[in-house]
Amino acid sequence: MPRTSSRSRVTSHEVALKAGVSQSTVSRVFSGRAGLSQATRERVLAVARDLGYKPNAIARSLSTRRTRIVGLVSSHMTNPYFPTVLQAFTQRLHELGWKVLLLSAGKSEDVDELLPEVLAYQVDGLVIASGSHGRRMTQEAQRQGLPVVLFGRYALDSGVSAVSCANYEGGREVADAFLDAGHRRLAYVGGLEDTSTNLDRRRGFIERLAERGVSDCRVERGIFTYQGGYEAARRLLESPQPPDAIFCANDIPAFGVLDAARDLGVKVPEELSVIGFDDIPMAQWSGYSLTTVRQPVEAMIEASVGLLLEHIETPGAGSVVRFLPGTLVWRRSARLRR
Amino acid sequence: MPRTSSRSRVTSHEVALKAGVSQSTVSRVFSGRAGLSQATRERVLAVARDLGYKPNAIARSLSTRRTRIVGLVSSHMTNPYFPTVLQAFTQRLHELGWKVLLLSAGKSEDVDELLPEVLAYQVDGLVIASGSHGRRMTQEAQRQGLPVVLFGRYALDSGVSAVSCANYEGGREVADAFLDAGHRRLAYVGGLEDTSTNLDRRRGFIERLAERGVSDCRVERGIFTYQGGYEAARRLLESPQPPDAIFCANDIPAFGVLDAARDLGVKVPEELSVIGFDDIPMAQWSGYSLTTVRQPVEAMIEASVGLLLEHIETPGAGSVVRFLPGTLVWRRSARLRR
Repeated sequence: MPRTSSRSRVTSHEVALKAGVSQSTVSRVFSGRAGLSQATRERVLAVARDLGYKPNAIARSLSTRRTRIVGLVSSHMTNPYFPTVLQAFTQRLHELGWKVLLLSAGKSEDVDELLPEVLAYQVDGLVIASGSHGRRMTQEAQRQGLPVVLFGRYALDSGVSAVSCANYEGGREVADAFLDAGHRRLAYVGGLEDTSTNLDRRRGFIERLAERGVSDCRVERGIFTYQGGYEAARRLLESPQPPDAIFCANDIPAFGVLDAARDLGVKVPEELSVIGFDDIPMAQWSGYSLTTVRQPVEAMIEASVGLLLEHIETPGAGSVVRFLPGTLVWRRSARLRR
Repeated sequence: MPRTSSRSRVTSHEVALKAGVSQSTVSRVFSGRAGLSQATRERVLAVARDLGYKPNAIARSLSTRRTRIVGLVSSHMTNPYFPTVLQAFTQRLHELGWKVLLLSAGKSEDVDELLPEVLAYQVDGLVIASGSHGRRMTQEAQRQGLPVVLFGRYALDSGVSAVSCANYEGGREVADAFLDAGHRRLAYVGGLEDTSTNLDRRRGFIERLAERGVSDCRVERGIFTYQGGYEAARRLLESPQPPDAIFCANDIPAFGVLDAARDLGVKVPEELSVIGFDDIPMAQWSGYSLTTVRQPVEAMIEASVGLLLEHIETPGAGSVVRFLPGTLVWRRSARLRR
């Protein structure tokens, strides 16, 4: 096969000479950086092909000590929120000349199981986008001096940089929205117990209710799927004192809540207001039209990439936890202020 | 930083000696392969940390000429069908000791734009999961002797291996389902014009209708989003001769069709039957309950991974295009046979 026999024989210098460009132009073509004309790229690729030139990012990484690969560690990839994040991350890093090595835990697996491989692949930095866990991986990465940024959550006790939505404030804003619209029988349908997202949203919601004199709020715990939301809503709505407003920690269970209300003949928003959190694309679908707190995903990704590259360039500069505010997006699932 | 100063000083031999295991055990811990006790793994990791050992998969790849990385090329990652595929691929390759390097085109970008980088990263093989395009990348990979498998579509003129759902047969089955239920006013709401998936589903549907004497089928082209499906359904349902059965090339636009029907007061399935294709998780949500053709995703991934590894082990063994049958999953959105 040509791939084996011609490997490493031709140099980028020869390609540059024959294509009539500088060696750095050849290198820029193969590292995918911007700022070259289509014609130049095509010519370099054609010459490279003719000569059988094999660019080798891996060999290059041994001389520069940079792989220009960022590891993205995740679990729960089947959450519809995830592709948006993955897409934006990959695209942003790509624009900056970096690649993403995807390290994903299986359904039942802890992301910590991936630790040995993460270390073996010599990534330059790590973004951990898993909802929970990853404590050992984070500690080990720190010991190795490998830059890490937590995405979408934080761990104040770890000394690790993180970028998160301002979930506590988001929860408070939802409490105000419900109370301003005249709701008094409230419920919270919430996510995983060990995630900062869920805990902050719930705390913000319940504390703000209490500040405004509403101390009674029913809580359904550990709900983060459509089916879980559907069943929680049936329990709540068929109870003797059904709530007239439900705050869901995420959009996905909120869709389950809305479908349960529809199946039970409970009118939204006349008899029940529902507010979610995330603003995934489906929230605007006509069948749901979900009022929800939008996470500033683009800004969160921009901040995470910025932090990570900063940590890569300047090791030992200390950690940063950045909270970016969400926005309450009003649609038809919640009653407006009276 | 320890990461820089101690790099490459300690060998796996020293780690093995101190941990009291063989060198191959150390290598197995760091390549993430199965079959080691938790205790052994922990001990090796602890010793490696004490000694400041840096495993280096990349340096290793230069001696074995294998990176054990598979590039997964995709676009349109925001389709909810994608995370399921990505999750399963990553997990399956991970079980086999391989990693996934994710190469994703931006929203407006052709995946071919990624070509120089794909070549530079020296992946051992390539899975192209993009709905369309990628022709130049495929050709270039072939020229370089780099194994490629197309996932979810095929290109018979390219001589490249592929694994696809049997889309033509799926389309025929939907035609039979509609005709058996007594529908005669039919419409097809379809995907991208240059994808084998869309073309085969449409051809199967329309040819089977014709075989059974129904030559009239309205076609809405280029529809692959929720919004596109919603608008196409409004056009069709508000026309003088509205269809009573709509086959959507994918589930996502089918949800748009169902919401449009709901907004127009058209009863499903009494006045309109809708069938989709894919069976993404939302199809079973109570708000949609979509009858759809399920793609055998697990089997397709198993077949793709198998084919790719076969091509990596045995270069030049010829290409294979494998079609795996889908299954019509009946839910509430379509009328059953009378």
